[in-house]
This record gives sequence, C-alpha cells and structure tokens, in this order.
Amino acid sequence: MPRPKIYLAGPEVFLPDAREIGLRKKALCEDFGFVGLYPLDNDFSAAPGERLDEKIFAANMALMRGADAGIFNLTPFRGINADPGTAFELGFFAGLDKPVFAYSHHAAPLFDRVAAEFGAQPSSDGGHRDSAGLMIENFGNADNLMLDSALRAQSRAVVRPDATLTDPGALEMFAACLRQARLHFGF
Amino acid sequence: MPRPKIYLAGPEVFLPDAREIGLRKKALCEDFGFVGLYPLDNDFSAAPGERLDEKIFAANMALMRGADAGIFNLTPFRGINADPGTAFELGFFAGLDKPVFAYSHHAAPLFDRVAAEFGAQPSSDGGHRDSAGLMIENFGNADNLMLDSALRAQSRAVVRPDATLTDPGALEMFAACLRQARLHFGF
Repeated sequence: MPRPKIYLAGPEVFLPDAREIGLRKKALCEDFGFVGLYPLDNDFSAAPGERLDEKIFAANMALMRGADAGIFNLTPFRGINADPGTAFELGFFAGLDKPVFAYSHHAAPLFDRVAAEFGAQPSSDGGHRDSAGLMIENFGNADNLMLDSALRAQSRAVVRPDATLTDPGALEMFAACLRQARLHFGF
Repeated sequence: MPRPKIYLAGPEVFLPDAREIGLRKKALCEDFGFVGLYPLDNDFSAAPGERLDEKIFAANMALMRGADAGIFNLTPFRGINADPGTAFELGFFAGLDKPVFAYSHHAAPLFDRVAAEFGAQPSSDGGHRDSAGLMIENFGNADNLMLDSALRAQSRAVVRPDATLTDPGALEMFAACLRQARLHFGF
C-alpha cells in the first residue's frame, strides 16, 4: 500500500527557519508511515509578467488535491486567531470531504484571548461582548467554531497543550495529530 | 428559473445589529434577483446536553451546501486579518468549486496593516519581515494570498473601497459583489 500523503498547513511557512521546520515535519511524517507535503517543497520564482502569489496558490492547491489528509497548525498568528490562509485550507479540505487533523500551540480557548486583548462584558442575551460590542464565542473552542466543529464533525478535536508552547518549532502537538492520523488510516 | 441562492459570509454576525444587517443584505439580494442565505436565518437554542456551536456549524454547512454561490466579507476582524470562520467558509466553497465573490471595507493591502502593526524591515531575500522576523506577503492583496487567489482563480478580485469604510453596516462593497454575481449568472 502506498503511504498516505498528508498536507502540512500552518503559518510556519512565514518563520525565518520555515524550510528547516518543514524538513523536520516531513521527517516525522516518514517515521509515522506518511509522506508529508509541505508548501515550501516547491522552489518558487516568477518570470517577468508572472505573479508569484498565483504560482504559490496553484502549487498549494495541487498539493492539497493530491493529499489524502491534512494536518493544520491553528496556533494564533499575528493576533488572537489562526492564520486565515490555514483556515481557508481547512475549509478546502472540508469541502473535499478529506480527513483533517489540527493542533494549536496555545493552551487557552479563543474566549480567553479575546477577553485579554479586547475585554469581555456579560451581555443581556446571556453571552459576552468585547469592548467594541462584538459578540464573543464562548464554547471552549481553540478558535472560531467553524474550525473546531470541522474537526468534531470527524469525531476529533483541535489538539492543545496543557501549557502554551512558545517554541514555534515544537513538534509535540504535530506528533499527536500524526498519531490520530495513524489510527484513522488503520496502522 | 429559480433565483440563485447566495450564502452571505462575514463577521457581521458578531455585531450588535447582526440581525438587522442580515435583513438589509437579504433585501439587497432580492433587489438583484437573488435569495440571500444568512447564518442567523436560523434561531438557535441548545437543549440540555446539546452543543450550541455544533448546531450552528451544522446549519451553516447545510446553508453553504444548498447555496449556488457565496459572498464573503473579508474586512479585518479583531486584528489585521479576515475572520477565520469566513476564511474557512471561502475555502469550503473553493472545495465545492462554487462561484465566490468577496469584499473588504479596508482600502489598504494586508502588507500595510502588518507594517503598521508589526513593523516591516527589508530582508536579505529581497522581501520584508516584521519585528518578530516573520515574512510579510507583499503582493498587494487584501489578505493572505490563498484568499485573494481563490477569487482570481475565478477571474475576480476582492472588492475594496478607495478609502476605508468605518461603518460595518455599509453595503456599497457588498452591492459591488452582487453586481459581479449578476454578471456571473447572466442577468
């Protein structure tokens, strides 16, 4: 049986050591019996008149279409929420009805991050609103309910650590997703 | 011919006047010959033992599956990026290969918001990095390239105003998407 291919989504592509982290993630995939597909597997350059972003998009879409599953790093990126590119890709996999696995390096639920950054006041409807009057989701989820529920729809949850991990290159949560993937694929 | 159904995605569901904005968007859809599907069309409540977030997720997924197209409000939400729930939904539509239309109330590209909030320094690779060393996309896009390119893959672009709109209930950009949708559906 060919080894299942897993697309590795997350904002680590923006880190200074993006390529090295990718190589470490792909090596761990090998250890677990998978092939990791990483967005930076391709070396991109744009000829005159070409848009580099279009080439990256097309390559990522091709990797995702060819993947048997995806692992999504939903760690907050430049703010309190997951990287929107990663959120887009999680939705894309949901649309293709492929198995998804996700983790965050942040221990607390979204509610706590919103409350710390934007305030949280009880509102007349029994919920909470931030200082701008915006409703705050309070379901204990790692992020917006669409993301967490996409995992629960497949009987999984976003994997989170007991205490927030500050090293973006930590692989413990990623490894936990690989264990889930191994169970899913039955080996 | 039955009127095409358009899913109305965006973070306005968190606003104090979320329902009123939804009614105004749906009314404008009618004016353009469409039926607008708004996440708050359903009145949600959870019985003991039920998860309210799961009910909302299931209802939104059903609305999206039943829609002929989607209009996505990518205006930055609680930070510099689009709401991740909306990004997820845009990806879901891309996975289902349905027509997508998108707008932002923010005039500037993502790069400018990152630079203002997190700094931007030229890096040795010819690009830019923020104060944390994270690469900054600089393609003139409204948000992460996966989002903008999903629009361009359908020969469209994220609609943006000449000057940032501060009223979250403004409908000019939404109307511009409805005009695109009317062209797409040929009436």
